[in-house]
Amino acid sequence: MKSKYQVKIFVTLRPSVLDPAGTAVESGLQQLGYSTVEQVRIGKYIELNITAPNERIARENLDRICDTMLANPVIENYRFDMREVETQTGIV
Amino acid sequence: MKSKYQVKIFVTLRPSVLDPAGTAVESGLQQLGYSTVEQVRIGKYIELNITAPNERIARENLDRICDTMLANPVIENYRFDMREVETQTGIV
Repeated sequence: MKSKYQVKIFVTLRPSVLDPAGTAVESGLQQLGYSTVEQVRIGKYIELNITAPNERIARENLDRICDTMLANPVIENYRFDMREVETQTGIV
Repeated sequence: MKSKYQVKIFVTLRPSVLDPAGTAVESGLQQLGYSTVEQVRIGKYIELNITAPNERIARENLDRICDTMLANPVIENYRFDMREVETQTGIV
């Protein structure tokens, strides 16, 4: 039996790392008149589907995927939400 | 009285728009052996704080900010979650 999970991954810069893109957006917004906006930080948002025998294995795979490809663990944090969307029964 | 809201904005490509970066990540993951990953879509995740007299005005401002600076409405959708973190009382 295998389950398909829909995953939403959020990759953010660590708080100690400067975010020049966020600073640029913030100053752009202030020039447009939105002076009440502050602490803009820009990250990545990734959606994907993963198939795995169970949730634990799906989470282990996702941790490896995030560490190796989606996030740079030196400067970025990640977290993900997952929900099961489908269960496939039968011989795998 | 003004309130400060912590906002999380998710900008995603519209479903009909091709996502070459997502396709590249997907094929990279498959080459690394993660053949169970599919439908990778890459978007932006933005965190910011905004101060406004009430939630309705904060939402109106955020809609304008997303439409003009954070998302390209021709090819991207956005949504945001907000929560109040602080209320400032006194003469503004």
